[in-house]
Amino acid sequence: MRATVIHGPGDIRVEEVPDPEIRLPGDAVVKVVAACVCGSDLWPYRGVIETASPRRIGHEFVGVVEEVGSDVTSLRTGQFVIAPFALSDNTCAHCRYGVHTSCASGAWWGGEDEKGLQIDGGQGEYVRVPVADGTLVATPETPEVADIPSLLTLSDVMGTGHHAAIAAAAAPGRSVVVVGDGAVGLCGVLASRRLGAERIIAMSRHADRQALAREFGATDIVEKRGDEGVAQVKELLGGLGADAVLECVGTKESMQQAIDATRPGGRVGYVGVPAGGSELPIEQLFSNNVSVGGGVAPVRAYLEELLADTLAGAIDPGRVFDLELPLDEAAEAYAAMDQRRSIKTMLRP
Amino acid sequence: MRATVIHGPGDIRVEEVPDPEIRLPGDAVVKVVAACVCGSDLWPYRGVIETASPRRIGHEFVGVVEEVGSDVTSLRTGQFVIAPFALSDNTCAHCRYGVHTSCASGAWWGGEDEKGLQIDGGQGEYVRVPVADGTLVATPETPEVADIPSLLTLSDVMGTGHHAAIAAAAAPGRSVVVVGDGAVGLCGVLASRRLGAERIIAMSRHADRQALAREFGATDIVEKRGDEGVAQVKELLGGLGADAVLECVGTKESMQQAIDATRPGGRVGYVGVPAGGSELPIEQLFSNNVSVGGGVAPVRAYLEELLADTLAGAIDPGRVFDLELPLDEAAEAYAAMDQRRSIKTMLRP
Repeated sequence: MRATVIHGPGDIRVEEVPDPEIRLPGDAVVKVVAACVCGSDLWPYRGVIETASPRRIGHEFVGVVEEVGSDVTSLRTGQFVIAPFALSDNTCAHCRYGVHTSCASGAWWGGEDEKGLQIDGGQGEYVRVPVADGTLVATPETPEVADIPSLLTLSDVMGTGHHAAIAAAAAPGRSVVVVGDGAVGLCGVLASRRLGAERIIAMSRHADRQALAREFGATDIVEKRGDEGVAQVKELLGGLGADAVLECVGTKESMQQAIDATRPGGRVGYVGVPAGGSELPIEQLFSNNVSVGGGVAPVRAYLEELLADTLAGAIDPGRVFDLELPLDEAAEAYAAMDQRRSIKTMLRP
Repeated sequence: MRATVIHGPGDIRVEEVPDPEIRLPGDAVVKVVAACVCGSDLWPYRGVIETASPRRIGHEFVGVVEEVGSDVTSLRTGQFVIAPFALSDNTCAHCRYGVHTSCASGAWWGGEDEKGLQIDGGQGEYVRVPVADGTLVATPETPEVADIPSLLTLSDVMGTGHHAAIAAAAAPGRSVVVVGDGAVGLCGVLASRRLGAERIIAMSRHADRQALAREFGATDIVEKRGDEGVAQVKELLGGLGADAVLECVGTKESMQQAIDATRPGGRVGYVGVPAGGSELPIEQLFSNNVSVGGGVAPVRAYLEELLADTLAGAIDPGRVFDLELPLDEAAEAYAAMDQRRSIKTMLRP
C-alpha cells in the first residue's frame, strides 16, 4: 500500500510500504477514508523537530474496519470509525480519569506498540490499530459523505480545541481569547461557544480565518500580536484581560501573549505542542494568579460527546478543511499548510 | 513607637520610629495586639532577596482600631480587626473577582500607598492602614484571648494554605499531597481537610511538624524528599501521583517535587513565593496535562468564611504558633524561624 514518509525538513514522500495485518489479538486493520495534516506535523517538516531517519507520519484519520483480531469485542468489520491521535485502552486508571494520552497501554501513530512492533502513520491507505477496542470510536451508522470532514476533526483538532477551552475554563459569562488561528484555534472558538462563552475574541491576521472564526462564534477579532494585541484585548474587556485564554500555537511568543492577555485570577488553557524553549514565567504567573493548564489533548475522552453534537448538526468543525487532495499529493498538502495557503488539508487515499 | 526594621541579611532591629497618624481620609490607625514572622520574611533575612537600604518589615497582624479617617464607614474605634497581608479596596474589578492581591488601589505593608506615602510594616506597636474599609475585617465581638493566634493566621498563613488547596482543587474524593511543612503547608493540610479531601499526604522530616500535620488532618506522612519522596507518594496512591498537590515552599526543587508528585491530569496549587529562578518545565507539564495555578494568595477574599469557621471552632489554625516573644525580641523570632526551631513565631508588642 501507499503511505507518507518524512525524510527530513520539507521532504514528504508517498511511498510503497508493507500492507498492514493483524499482529496482535487486540489489533484492527482500518481502511482509511480520509486523513489530514496537523499543525504539529509541520514541526518536523520545518526542521524544528529533527527527523533522524525516514519515518511514517500522520496521526489523524477516519475509516472503515477491514479486519479485527481475536480479542477485539466492540468493533466489527464494516464499521465506520474515528481514530484519536493517541492510542489508549480506555480502561486504565489514567483513562478513567479522562487522561487517555497518559494511558498505561498508550502509544502513538508512527511509533511502537506495547510489544515494540511498528505502528503505521495515519496518512496511508490502511492502518494497523493496536488496542483497537479502546482507541477507535465507531459511529452509530455509516455517516453521510458530507459529515466526514467534521468527523475527521474529532481525531484531533476539534478535541484539542475543546481541551484548551476546558483547561481555560471557558463557560457561560466568561470572556475568552483565542491565540492562534490555525484549525485548533478555530476549533477552540467553536468549543468555547459550545461551552457557553458569550464574548470570544479571536486573534488573527488572515481574512479567511477571521471569517471562519466569526462563523464559529467569535464576537471580536484582534489583528495585532504581542503587546499591541494584548492592549487591544484589554481595551475590548474594560481594561482587564480575559477570564479564559486558549493558547493554540506552542511558541514562546504565543504563550507569552496568552499569559499577558489573561486577567489576574484567570486561566490559560494551552494545547500547542511546546516548540522552542517556552519555559513558563513563574514570577509573572505568581504575581497575577494566572493558572496554566492543558497539554497534549486526551481527545478520546471527549469523543463521544463531540461525536453526538457533530452528528446532531450542533457543531460543524469540518469547515476548517479548505483544501482536499489525493494522498499522492501529500507533499503539496504539507506545503500548502506550511505556507498558510490552507487552514487544514484533507488527504483522500 | 517601636517597630522592626531590617538592615540586611540576619540583621533585624527593633527601633524607635514615628508614631503613625491618619494621613488620608480612608486611613485607620490600629494598635497591634499580635504580629508574627512569615516564611517570606526570611528571604530578605537570608539574603535571597536584597535589602538595598533599611526598611520596615512584617505583614501579618491583628489589633484594635485606634482611630479612623473621615471617609472610613465600616470601622469604628475599639473594634478588633484582622489585617490581610495585602491592602485592597474590596470594590474594584479584581477584588470582585476575588483577586484582592491585584487590587487597583492595592498596596503592601512596608511599601507605599496610592499617594506615595510610606506604609508601616506589620511588626510594630501601631500601624497606619490605608484603604482601611476594604483592607481590614472586624470580628463581630472582641475575641477571647485564646482565639487570637488563630485569628492572626487569617492574616496570611491560613488564607494562603487555603488558596493553595483551592488552586489545586482539593475536594471530597481527591488525594492531596502537601509539599512544605512550614506554617503555610500545615495550614494547607487543614484547608484540604476542611474542603473534604480524605487522603492527605504531608511531606515532612520533622517530628513536631508531622504531629501537627496529623492533627490537622494528614492521613500519611512521607519523610523523603525529591525522587525518593515522590516514589513513596506514588506507592501510597496505587502507583499514581496525587490529584492535588500543594506547593508551599517556593524553591525550584520543591516545585519540581510537587509537579513530579502530581498524577497526569492533576493540579499543582502553589503559594510559595518563587525564590531562585524556578521557571516551570513546560514539556513535562504538557506531556502529563499537569496544571499549575495559584500565586500570591488573595487572603482577603477568603477572610469572612475562614473567620466564621475559626470563631465556630471548626478550625484551629493558631496551633502553628509554637513560640511567642515580645516585640523587642524580634531578632530572636527571626532566628528561631530561620533555624527551624519554631514553626511560626508570634510577636506581642
